[in-house]
Amino acid sequence: MELEQEDILEQFKQLITTEDKIAIRDFLNVQNISDVAELIYAYPDDEATIIANMAIHRASKVFKILDFTTQKQIIAELPSNKTAELLNDLPADDRTDFLEELPKTVIRDLIKLLDPNERKITLSLLGYPEDSVGRLMTPDYVFIYAENTVEEVFETIRKYAKNSETIDVLYVINEYGELLDDIRIRDVILASPRKKVEELIDGRVVALNVNDDQEYASQVFKMNNRVALPVTDDNNKLLGIVTIDDMLWVANEEFSEDMQKMGGTEALDEPYLDMPILKLFRKRVGWLIVLFIGEMLTATAMGFFEDEIAKAVVLALFIPLIISSGGNSGSQASTLIIQAMAVGEITISDWWRVLRREIISGLLLGTVLGIIGFIRVAAWHAIIPTVYGDHWIMIGFTVGFSLIGVVLWGTLSGSMLPIILKRLGADPAVSSAPFVATLVDVTGLIIYFSFAYLFLQGLLL
Amino acid sequence: MELEQEDILEQFKQLITTEDKIAIRDFLNVQNISDVAELIYAYPDDEATIIANMAIHRASKVFKILDFTTQKQIIAELPSNKTAELLNDLPADDRTDFLEELPKTVIRDLIKLLDPNERKITLSLLGYPEDSVGRLMTPDYVFIYAENTVEEVFETIRKYAKNSETIDVLYVINEYGELLDDIRIRDVILASPRKKVEELIDGRVVALNVNDDQEYASQVFKMNNRVALPVTDDNNKLLGIVTIDDMLWVANEEFSEDMQKMGGTEALDEPYLDMPILKLFRKRVGWLIVLFIGEMLTATAMGFFEDEIAKAVVLALFIPLIISSGGNSGSQASTLIIQAMAVGEITISDWWRVLRREIISGLLLGTVLGIIGFIRVAAWHAIIPTVYGDHWIMIGFTVGFSLIGVVLWGTLSGSMLPIILKRLGADPAVSSAPFVATLVDVTGLIIYFSFAYLFLQGLLL
Repeated sequence: MELEQEDILEQFKQLITTEDKIAIRDFLNVQNISDVAELIYAYPDDEATIIANMAIHRASKVFKILDFTTQKQIIAELPSNKTAELLNDLPADDRTDFLEELPKTVIRDLIKLLDPNERKITLSLLGYPEDSVGRLMTPDYVFIYAENTVEEVFETIRKYAKNSETIDVLYVINEYGELLDDIRIRDVILASPRKKVEELIDGRVVALNVNDDQEYASQVFKMNNRVALPVTDDNNKLLGIVTIDDMLWVANEEFSEDMQKMGGTEALDEPYLDMPILKLFRKRVGWLIVLFIGEMLTATAMGFFEDEIAKAVVLALFIPLIISSGGNSGSQASTLIIQAMAVGEITISDWWRVLRREIISGLLLGTVLGIIGFIRVAAWHAIIPTVYGDHWIMIGFTVGFSLIGVVLWGTLSGSMLPIILKRLGADPAVSSAPFVATLVDVTGLIIYFSFAYLFLQGLLL
Repeated sequence: MELEQEDILEQFKQLITTEDKIAIRDFLNVQNISDVAELIYAYPDDEATIIANMAIHRASKVFKILDFTTQKQIIAELPSNKTAELLNDLPADDRTDFLEELPKTVIRDLIKLLDPNERKITLSLLGYPEDSVGRLMTPDYVFIYAENTVEEVFETIRKYAKNSETIDVLYVINEYGELLDDIRIRDVILASPRKKVEELIDGRVVALNVNDDQEYASQVFKMNNRVALPVTDDNNKLLGIVTIDDMLWVANEEFSEDMQKMGGTEALDEPYLDMPILKLFRKRVGWLIVLFIGEMLTATAMGFFEDEIAKAVVLALFIPLIISSGGNSGSQASTLIIQAMAVGEITISDWWRVLRREIISGLLLGTVLGIIGFIRVAAWHAIIPTVYGDHWIMIGFTVGFSLIGVVLWGTLSGSMLPIILKRLGADPAVSSAPFVATLVDVTGLIIYFSFAYLFLQGLLL
């Protein structure tokens, strides 16, 4: 497989230098769609040439699987008659998907290139909210009526299948265009030609609403064994269908956005390497400033303990260790909970179960780190007895107990924050590792100096 | 939709108290598969009863979309004749998926319940490595020969379609069982009955190798507009097919694992709430200890600067602020890069482009935070002139320049670490936010005290 790929690249390289258009066209028209896409990525200078020299129906298949930046470049380089052909041939859902990413003025110019009918479809799809099922929908499906015979169904298929995105599932509607059922092509093939559709249907149809969230749609696909689902409006009128292959992209996008938010960046709308540096900077700097201002509270908090640090400089040595342990355990907990919420394993109503589990986990984890921390102090004391002085045991206790407190606190805030955010209607993924770490840092200092008072008052303080 | 769901739950609740088996069975057999799954989640006590009281073909459809924990409980509660029926009726790929999660001894017992033929299939599927395409494969597909006529193809479909997972795509093989092409059912329906299959095929087939990684398979599905892909061995013999709906689960799993690793936990193999707390603890404590031991270096590093802190306690105040800014910018950068690598936007060979971009981004981000940091010092000085004393400008410079240095360093390590890990053959997702933060903390301290020497030597130090 890998080797063949190399071959294709090599052959094409030689062919393109000949500038023999017919040979290039013949070559491109016998390759796999995905191989042509690879060609385009390998030879970005020739991307428009490649698209322009393919049969239009194949060109649009290649175009729809390219990434957005490449698509944009191709449209910019292609002569406008080719652009018109290409856009008209693209399935309506993929066309909408592409257009909605473009600036408004460009969309307007491109829509002008469409045939009246395609233009109507596209404008209506663009009217649905972003991330809604409406944007993924295609109007190219086969519908039949309950009173049709199997023979008539085959006739309908022969007539309309060419333009429909799938014929694996057929949709049964009534005279008002309301959805009655969907029926798999296999059941039609297995039935005798005289049978009527109404004898084949069972009325068990799962439909999406045009305003449903795409993420929800992806869940419905997972739970129902269908390659396509019908989309209806609030009155059960059939508007279009969504096919399962679009769901692979939805899942990808959702997770990418979640991850970026969890890393403390706004969700990127372009691939990392294609994004202008200043735009990337803007996406990143916002959260960093917010976190930085939050983190400034640590300097204020430290100000309150300045006298204690002056009296016992040794206390300062463990500050980074203590606060980062809180941050780490917090990141861990928040990631676990965000991820479990993203796949639907945890809902808001589970908060009490989560809290109970995290109290136990936090105590266990804190105790382990606390013991290691105490051993660290004791070991250093054994090697260099002067390093922590006479009160090393109390210093060890301060460090150890602070770790238990800080890790417990980190675990609890990390696990509860995503649930609280969700409850408030915000995206749980925002409670990113950096966000939790910042929150825990200030409280970590307070916990640490409180234990220092407890164990070292009258000794060092 | 939501309301109907409530209705179903309510109706079932009343029905189950009557213990009228026939009524329960009738009720369950007219519900949607996904609604029955919801019922099972809503009434976990009755899960085995629900499965046992459905037509077996429907029961297996419900069973395959349940989560693993629920599946396990049902098998434990079901009488063994029902278990046998259920397992035999499950599609081979879903059965393998379920079995492979179980302990070896349990697998052995369950395999004994299978019919000889199903047993053979299952054992062979279980022989492929975990996360390989082989495990997702189903042997239930329709194959045809190039010399068949369209009429004969329909006959084959009528004969075998009942047991095949999809008939949307048919597979053309030769007498040696080698894969020649795949052909969509639409093309068969549109062709005249006398036409031969060899006239319909174009030889452009995309196949997966049985040892391919599941993640790779998911990429291939995205790039090729198919609902199913054939799976072949190294000699191009057709072994089975993989259907696109399995890919939705693969994508989910991959991302969940990536996220968990990025949060500094080992990948969980069970849902969060189902995992015993001690097991959860073990998954979390390992990384926390590693990070903690790494973080201990900060205490050592701080030890070197103990004299400086004693001379200028004011320096200690900014330590948490400085190191956490490095950690935050590092988490941001590493998440961006891990995510871009996960979706294939960045490969190892892009390291130099990434480095250049991150140097610029790091300098920009650092400068912004550095200026805010300086303003913070100046503002506090203006409000309470005693707080930082006469040398407040130099303290401001120390904080400001340290921030530039630390943020730049955080950004660079955060972005390069995932690439280096990948180069070394490790999983980039391991370079989690906590991991990067820990790495940056120690160097952050060194950068900070270096700038302190530069600006404050002879003044405070």
